[in-house]
Amino acid sequence: MTPGPVDGTVRVGASAGSYEVRVGSGCLASLPDLLQSAVGAHRYALISDDDVAALHGDAVIARCRDAGLDAELFSFPAGERSKTRKSWSILTDRMLAGGFGRDSCVVALGGGVTGDLSGFVAATYLRGVPLVQLPTSYLAMIDASVGGKTGVDVAAGKNLVGAFHAPRFVLADTDLLTTLPTSERVQGLVEAFKHGATMDSSYFDWLSEHAARLIAVEGDVATEAVLRSVRLKAAVVTEDEREAGPREVLNFGHTLGHALEAASDFQVGHGTAVAAGMVLEAELGERLGVTRAGTRERIALGLAALGVGLDVVAEIDIDVALGFLGTDKKSRRGRPRFVLLEELGRVHREGGWSREAPETMVSEVMAEVAGSV
Amino acid sequence: MTPGPVDGTVRVGASAGSYEVRVGSGCLASLPDLLQSAVGAHRYALISDDDVAALHGDAVIARCRDAGLDAELFSFPAGERSKTRKSWSILTDRMLAGGFGRDSCVVALGGGVTGDLSGFVAATYLRGVPLVQLPTSYLAMIDASVGGKTGVDVAAGKNLVGAFHAPRFVLADTDLLTTLPTSERVQGLVEAFKHGATMDSSYFDWLSEHAARLIAVEGDVATEAVLRSVRLKAAVVTEDEREAGPREVLNFGHTLGHALEAASDFQVGHGTAVAAGMVLEAELGERLGVTRAGTRERIALGLAALGVGLDVVAEIDIDVALGFLGTDKKSRRGRPRFVLLEELGRVHREGGWSREAPETMVSEVMAEVAGSV
Repeated sequence: MTPGPVDGTVRVGASAGSYEVRVGSGCLASLPDLLQSAVGAHRYALISDDDVAALHGDAVIARCRDAGLDAELFSFPAGERSKTRKSWSILTDRMLAGGFGRDSCVVALGGGVTGDLSGFVAATYLRGVPLVQLPTSYLAMIDASVGGKTGVDVAAGKNLVGAFHAPRFVLADTDLLTTLPTSERVQGLVEAFKHGATMDSSYFDWLSEHAARLIAVEGDVATEAVLRSVRLKAAVVTEDEREAGPREVLNFGHTLGHALEAASDFQVGHGTAVAAGMVLEAELGERLGVTRAGTRERIALGLAALGVGLDVVAEIDIDVALGFLGTDKKSRRGRPRFVLLEELGRVHREGGWSREAPETMVSEVMAEVAGSV
Repeated sequence: MTPGPVDGTVRVGASAGSYEVRVGSGCLASLPDLLQSAVGAHRYALISDDDVAALHGDAVIARCRDAGLDAELFSFPAGERSKTRKSWSILTDRMLAGGFGRDSCVVALGGGVTGDLSGFVAATYLRGVPLVQLPTSYLAMIDASVGGKTGVDVAAGKNLVGAFHAPRFVLADTDLLTTLPTSERVQGLVEAFKHGATMDSSYFDWLSEHAARLIAVEGDVATEAVLRSVRLKAAVVTEDEREAGPREVLNFGHTLGHALEAASDFQVGHGTAVAAGMVLEAELGERLGVTRAGTRERIALGLAALGVGLDVVAEIDIDVALGFLGTDKKSRRGRPRFVLLEELGRVHREGGWSREAPETMVSEVMAEVAGSV
């Protein structure tokens, strides 16, 4: 017997009202209906990078116009380098020049950069207009489009300027993943492994087992992974929209991951950096006696199945990476904090969701992992 | 018998939790205690323009440091021309360079420009840090510091980029008004007249009667005016934080006021423009049969007591002003909307809080008022 389709809907709680994340193959067909019922704006500004605009922009605009909606495409150069205050200003000014009023809605079509950048445009346009997320990458579907975080990078670091602005709804059409380059599929799937590592060990094992099929976007595995990740993330952000507590678990691997990324001058992918960060922070937890022995090994094996290695740790300058730790958003009183596991699938939460660690130990862990590559 | 001091506290409701506005002579003395009890941040970034920084910056910083608080002053060039994305970027980057983390708080010390600009810094710094407002002008005390609106001007218009970000508390020390230039006192008091015109005709009459003493910041009248205005505004924004309904009443005089301001290339003061806007919109309401006859006359007389005339209407190009109407934030489907009075002290609300008006009638009203000057 063939299993039925695994498409589904997850509801995410937010202070400004809850919203739905719909996941499934071909679900983009319901976009016009959803825009009309859940937003009802006068005009829609579809924001996309050049690459995604070329692939899907005209089709999405046509779908909207066929349903009688006033929709216009605004594109920007693809890449993380566009996630700046400058791009945000340009997009805002183009919408203003186009006469978009307060009864407009921003529709973000793309990956993580597009979602964060368009979200910040929506959050600040005329002091805020509705936002809809149409993620096209694993990263955006699994992670970025759920939770309301928007923002841009500045010279001092990534995502340091932004706002919380929950979308009206998220539509994750997994068919779009097939147009994503393979390397980006791998990068995004790292966040799914993080969801497993912090909240559901059986999901971690399932991901390790299906890594090749997920990368190939085969059958229903992609949809199942997105749905499971969105469910896990939704539970956390519903409980803690503003990252005052439980939402911190999502930062596992990210304190050192961001430092590695910054130390490489962002030449290393976010997923690769976070993957290494997870292994490093698992080792850190083991040394601190907080994380069950063998957890680092299990995480490293799972990520190896995904094809993500630890070369990055050997390639960057450890002192440079340590220097970036103090400026992390998660720092308190200028000291970096780490989310640590108790075991695979569960975060250690004694005395808070994150804790400090001695800089010498962090340095030793990085040196040891660098030497093991 | 001497009347007692009229200082007092008003509570304002906001989605992120309510906050207090304390009004009184000398109430700035309670700043350190309030920062500790209502914010409890690790560090405080005091933002002020050069003028206000020179007058009050050192004293406020010293007051904080004496109480053991880590406070640092960030200043920017005085004037509306600083209310830009550029100033916002510079202030943000200076705070980042100074190592201000997520456990920091922005304290805005100044007039409307400082409150709006600092508020937007706070709203977007690391996706939002707490904000405290210390208004130093009538405009900021009466209007700008209450209600959570923050933002900057762009080429296409004023306040077109921003966010709603409610303060943790507002401390309005009316002693500071004595350091304000007289012309700015008058500009700010126009918003108090607007509160009277839209919500409380006896307050409008009281303001007209005490105009000279208010301008001179004599005795307790200044504190009483600030308190009465804050109470009226608080009632409205508590009911309608995001301007979906009742908050619209605060836009009385502002649709045409903004158009006049823009048509003068912002050479005319905001208060002067809004004052003229109120007279014009009262006349518009009378012509539409919505506003009781004689209301325009009563408003014009009250504003004359304040020393604000209608010269601006004669000085600007009416067609240019009309051209700015379509781009107003309050427009819907590209058409300007007007808040109209039923009579002095009461807004007409049949079929909504605002309505459209024929452009020919708007043009005629402007021509008639221009001719009457």
